[in-house]
Amino acid sequence: MNFCSHCGSARMEFRVPEGDNRPRYVCPDCDTIHYTNPKIVTGCLPVWENKVLLAQRAISPRLGYWNVPSGYMENGETVEQGAAREVWEETLARVRHLTLHAVFSIPHINQVYIHFLAELDTPDFGVGEESLAVRLFSEEEVPWGEIAFTSSVFTLKHFFSDRRQGRREVHMGVMERS
Amino acid sequence: MNFCSHCGSARMEFRVPEGDNRPRYVCPDCDTIHYTNPKIVTGCLPVWENKVLLAQRAISPRLGYWNVPSGYMENGETVEQGAAREVWEETLARVRHLTLHAVFSIPHINQVYIHFLAELDTPDFGVGEESLAVRLFSEEEVPWGEIAFTSSVFTLKHFFSDRRQGRREVHMGVMERS
Repeated sequence: MNFCSHCGSARMEFRVPEGDNRPRYVCPDCDTIHYTNPKIVTGCLPVWENKVLLAQRAISPRLGYWNVPSGYMENGETVEQGAAREVWEETLARVRHLTLHAVFSIPHINQVYIHFLAELDTPDFGVGEESLAVRLFSEEEVPWGEIAFTSSVFTLKHFFSDRRQGRREVHMGVMERS
Repeated sequence: MNFCSHCGSARMEFRVPEGDNRPRYVCPDCDTIHYTNPKIVTGCLPVWENKVLLAQRAISPRLGYWNVPSGYMENGETVEQGAAREVWEETLARVRHLTLHAVFSIPHINQVYIHFLAELDTPDFGVGEESLAVRLFSEEEVPWGEIAFTSSVFTLKHFFSDRRQGRREVHMGVMERS
């Protein structure tokens, strides 16, 4: 943050405001405190019979890697609406009746992944603009070495493990800086 | 957003960037797109025997109203760490072994509440800087007309209902614009 987005000042300071306990961008000219907070990445693993729907990323980061359809939650939507939107944008599949599956924090990059599950009504899908390919995978077919993000590995492992044991749980996870 | 926080330009535009599908603040001088996304409010309902610990707010909004200890999640922490921090800051109670209880979206103000439950090891607590008072309440004692936020009513109602029925669930909720 080089300039105050409120008054245009070039004298931005990064310091602990009075009464606070952590540094923020503070404008000494208009006194605005600019807070930054973690972002939510919302997504959903579509399920069809014994298979799951993954999208191969057409964009950076991790271009060419496979992912649970997900992306940044937008203003003006619920977490579930955001997840269904991401599934539609990436895989052209429609999901309904989403159930919460995983909440995964990545503190060093200020992200929280919220992943749902949803059974597809029909195996209709296609290749969205941000995808190179979209495919159903059984557990044996999942390309474990080519999964885009740790959050997706977490969600997939727990999904298959829960399914083998006939249970449904919400899984809390965290990725530490490696 | 009156000025570009990157280059200081005063010519900010609010428009749909190429390849996007919703309006963003875009700087025509340095081409930076300034995204804004929902914020997470993380919190935890501390439980002691048949009572829950609420904090009376010493700050706006809803000054003087009672609340499940919660606040904006900060960069660099997990959702659980943020919830435990908020409990400490508001009630001087230490919570461990948090279990997820509720995820509550408020789309028109771009917030997602994530509330946990935690049994207190001991009934030790005090009045944090942002609180006027802190108290344990049984279900009958909860001041339902003086609860600060809908998200807290949601969390409290489900907590007592689950407890009566001897179950533990994660509850998904949404507050529509009234």
